[in-house]
Amino acid sequence: MERVERRASHGGFQEVWTHASAAVGGPMRFGIYLPPQAAERPCPVVYFLSGLTCTEQNVITKAGAQRYAAELGLVVVAPDTSPRGADVPDDPAYDLGQGAGFYVDATQAPWDRHYQMATYVAEELPALIEARFPVTTARGIMGHSMGGHGALVLALRHPGRYRSVSALAPIVAPSQVPWGQKALGAYLGPDAAAWAAWDACALIPGATERLPLLVDQGDADDFLARELQPERLQAACAAAGHPLTLRLQPGYDHSYYFIASFIGEHLAHHAAALAGQ
Amino acid sequence: MERVERRASHGGFQEVWTHASAAVGGPMRFGIYLPPQAAERPCPVVYFLSGLTCTEQNVITKAGAQRYAAELGLVVVAPDTSPRGADVPDDPAYDLGQGAGFYVDATQAPWDRHYQMATYVAEELPALIEARFPVTTARGIMGHSMGGHGALVLALRHPGRYRSVSALAPIVAPSQVPWGQKALGAYLGPDAAAWAAWDACALIPGATERLPLLVDQGDADDFLARELQPERLQAACAAAGHPLTLRLQPGYDHSYYFIASFIGEHLAHHAAALAGQ
Repeated sequence: MERVERRASHGGFQEVWTHASAAVGGPMRFGIYLPPQAAERPCPVVYFLSGLTCTEQNVITKAGAQRYAAELGLVVVAPDTSPRGADVPDDPAYDLGQGAGFYVDATQAPWDRHYQMATYVAEELPALIEARFPVTTARGIMGHSMGGHGALVLALRHPGRYRSVSALAPIVAPSQVPWGQKALGAYLGPDAAAWAAWDACALIPGATERLPLLVDQGDADDFLARELQPERLQAACAAAGHPLTLRLQPGYDHSYYFIASFIGEHLAHHAAALAGQ
Repeated sequence: MERVERRASHGGFQEVWTHASAAVGGPMRFGIYLPPQAAERPCPVVYFLSGLTCTEQNVITKAGAQRYAAELGLVVVAPDTSPRGADVPDDPAYDLGQGAGFYVDATQAPWDRHYQMATYVAEELPALIEARFPVTTARGIMGHSMGGHGALVLALRHPGRYRSVSALAPIVAPSQVPWGQKALGAYLGPDAAAWAAWDACALIPGATERLPLLVDQGDADDFLARELQPERLQAACAAAGHPLTLRLQPGYDHSYYFIASFIGEHLAHHAAALAGQ
């Protein structure tokens, strides 16, 4: 485990680490923001899962999360979006392979050897963070776009593991939209029955824990109608009685300007749920 | 004049425009953040001058200024750091030519034709902004590194034009350090007597307006000893009785993490000075 970046930021430190991951069978990289409070006591952690094409750098340089995390006393951990490297399978398209792990555990060759991002993000990474950094075991999870899908699905698949969950412009029903169909088809195979375990809208009916969902979505998002379709999440939550706060934000697109505008409210939502845990 | 980007951000809009500049004899590009208040009334403007290698994109995507500008009701204008284009002279080094205009009006060939960044930033751009956007004529100016030099020098050269000035890790004495000697030598010629009119420390003794200077400097900045030397500014201000607040920030480097950590306090400093103007 090696620290490759350390920057003073808002009274704390934005760090980047690389380590050998057993889950993905190779090196992984993550960002971690340590707020000033972490110098004095363990702090709760929010995991931020990024979208297609991103590394940990996008959110740590563009989202402005550090200011809010410093105010709220939150550690923010931002993993990369896939395994990387010359020996890791890839695809020339931006929406499959490296940079597009979709936070699933792949079952299909050639992806199954390294693309175990669900296990990495929900199991290996928290264990590492909790062993090596000044954090409590109070965990929140959030994400953007593909990472919003990851946050919703991992929280739904692991009742009790997260105390709070939220998403910005998430893919809510990957089984029903082109991005998701392509990725789930590749990583899990063509039988759509296997996809339901990785689809937030398909998981909601059987959820054993009704963790409230906070979702923001820009109404000027170019991917809204084709890939995101938050009305599917609204319908699934309404049918199952699952608590959902879904806010359509007028004029906002899919960019980091949107993320930066609302990440403060999301982190406050997590901080409230994680307080005292 | 053409708008090339428009993003909803913190209740307002981050825009990017391109226009034909008479001062530099070619197209120039700038970012402008319009806070929510600008939809209702004219707002004061803070000009942010960026450092070496930057375009308008660095500060608008990485500094997190929009949140503070939205809170404070400030328009923030971020010009590019030089003229650009195939017909604009350049140098292979990162610290001369395109991306390194140094906010001077060049007098030496081949730079003199296009590199008129002082006239552009202090005259042409404010006239354009004030004619085309919902702003008052209350102006502040700030910048980072080379842009901090630009902010200090343009405020000192134009008494009455700016109501507030501040800088993050500025080059305060370009005549005395390698970055400045190289750039001023190229743009203004080898006679160092011509450089004094573009050197904050050299301008302080003769300043006719004692506008207070706010300067933050990270003490872990790799360029501190060789290029920045804030002690020269401190000495010049002390000798002249020029008001200076110089703060050494422990642990901070030269990056946008430093800028993002302190830009809120700088914008608040400007907002206080610009209120009611």
